[in-house]
Amino acid sequence: MSRIRRDPVADRWVIVAPERADRPMLYGREETAEACPFCPGNEGLTPPEILAWGRTAGGRDTSGWRGRVVPNRYPALGPEPPGTGGSLLPEGALFLERPGAGGHEVVVETPEHVWRPEAPDAEALAETLAVCAERMRHWSAHPGVRYVLVFKNHGEAAGATIPHPHFQLLALPLVPRTVHEEVEAAERHRRREGDCLWCRLLTAEREAGARWILETETVAAIAPYASRVPYEVWLLPRRHEIRFETSAGLREMATALADVLAALAGVLGDPAWNLVVHTAPVELAAEGSYHWHLEVLPRTVRFAGFEWGSGLAMNPVAPETAALALRGELTR
Amino acid sequence: MSRIRRDPVADRWVIVAPERADRPMLYGREETAEACPFCPGNEGLTPPEILAWGRTAGGRDTSGWRGRVVPNRYPALGPEPPGTGGSLLPEGALFLERPGAGGHEVVVETPEHVWRPEAPDAEALAETLAVCAERMRHWSAHPGVRYVLVFKNHGEAAGATIPHPHFQLLALPLVPRTVHEEVEAAERHRRREGDCLWCRLLTAEREAGARWILETETVAAIAPYASRVPYEVWLLPRRHEIRFETSAGLREMATALADVLAALAGVLGDPAWNLVVHTAPVELAAEGSYHWHLEVLPRTVRFAGFEWGSGLAMNPVAPETAALALRGELTR
Repeated sequence: MSRIRRDPVADRWVIVAPERADRPMLYGREETAEACPFCPGNEGLTPPEILAWGRTAGGRDTSGWRGRVVPNRYPALGPEPPGTGGSLLPEGALFLERPGAGGHEVVVETPEHVWRPEAPDAEALAETLAVCAERMRHWSAHPGVRYVLVFKNHGEAAGATIPHPHFQLLALPLVPRTVHEEVEAAERHRRREGDCLWCRLLTAEREAGARWILETETVAAIAPYASRVPYEVWLLPRRHEIRFETSAGLREMATALADVLAALAGVLGDPAWNLVVHTAPVELAAEGSYHWHLEVLPRTVRFAGFEWGSGLAMNPVAPETAALALRGELTR
Repeated sequence: MSRIRRDPVADRWVIVAPERADRPMLYGREETAEACPFCPGNEGLTPPEILAWGRTAGGRDTSGWRGRVVPNRYPALGPEPPGTGGSLLPEGALFLERPGAGGHEVVVETPEHVWRPEAPDAEALAETLAVCAERMRHWSAHPGVRYVLVFKNHGEAAGATIPHPHFQLLALPLVPRTVHEEVEAAERHRRREGDCLWCRLLTAEREAGARWILETETVAAIAPYASRVPYEVWLLPRRHEIRFETSAGLREMATALADVLAALAGVLGDPAWNLVVHTAPVELAAEGSYHWHLEVLPRTVRFAGFEWGSGLAMNPVAPETAALALRGELTR
């Protein structure tokens, strides 16, 4: 079982998960039909499924599905339910660790092995986001789970090991620092200004225009002002909603996401990217300060010594340049 | 000129440096003698040198040197001296940016184009560290410079674009968050415990043993308790010293570093890695809470959506496993 350790100097937690070292790397191999654990016919290569959608006949772990949720075979957290032994176990004043209790699931988006960068399947994405929301609600009810992190890695440079399109879900016994800081910033903003930080940001960005990429009735996409990587994109619901997992707008979000991903492919070829769902921590009250959103981080440049040493990012492409190119692609 | 921008949500600064987009990628090209700007005979491919060492005849920008400091041709910061226009320029309540004023230099370690992973040249490293310290002292005296970051990227997966061995130096108009947090943690520790956090850590790690890699009279190397990546190594002076740039122990540190890098190559082949010098901020008083050290971060796994989304790291190799392997390699 993995352990979650706190750095004795920095306020930084690390999941030490030796189980993950055994993951096979499936990029660069010709394995579409044979070795891919997420292809139809290979259901036996994954742990027993948690749920599937689109299957009209056949039982559990048979083919015929449009999508499928399975436990990660190489889990970063689990298998014990969080809440058991989840307290801090001080080994000494300097060394703090806790069991890596939680959940780690894979959401296979489609039976198709190959992602089509120029035309992502908006319908499959909509079904996938809805299922991710369902699993998020499921894990949020577990005692000890304080955050459910949903993300997708596309391409080898983005850390993916299996090319078959899939999302991942981690049910965590702590609130990740990144999210905790967002909540704190939003609380401070609300105390000072009285409104939602992201609602304010959307108004300001729409007015500024230079970083505005796309808008639909319910969704906006922007190149964030302090983009960490070239062509970083945030997608936000235009109405105030604190949680992804209870949003009524996931279908519209999936459509906008497919458009943004197609535009990224139009500008950059088939870039590797990470997609991260940002939602409120489990414990945040319904009136709490948050506004869920998606962050898309293309991985065309590498994180180097500068970033490790400083915690700053270095981005060679201004977000205004990125937004201009993406708008051009979207209006072709 | 680049700009330093603050994210409107997170307390995160980004250097937006379009000049960096023009950098050539020299990996995977056969350019040893011809295209490499850091090889002897190609001095004209870099901006005019700032200093060189080991040259016994010939003038500035001629060959015959053992090492050379030049301005970065694709600077992340500069060219204006910091202190000019370094104040915050509020574009609005949400958007804060400042000019990317500062310095960006390259320290070419050796005339040899190829790094020898199994036997790094300790003498060249010692000369290089001494010159980095000298340039750090130089920049620390500049008005507006608040931190001088020295680092080295080895290998394509670590973000290097030129294989010829070199360090980089960035003179920054701000204290990087990572360092600021280390100083704060060390201040808190000292108020509570009365001693230096890193001195305490060295005592505890030496006693624990499992993460202890190497010790000389003046230097210790450990696998940090919450290692972010497999085979992360920290090298620290065993006596309390707050600053790298005024240390009397750089030669011993260079020898220990060469040994650690050789051991990493012994265990991992020729891994890519980042090396980061952690020293006290310019403004920190001589009695301030810091303890300089080097962090070596091998890049055998990729940063993915989980890390972007959470700020946590996921490490598949326990530091105790890494330390055991490295100790084995060092005692062969």
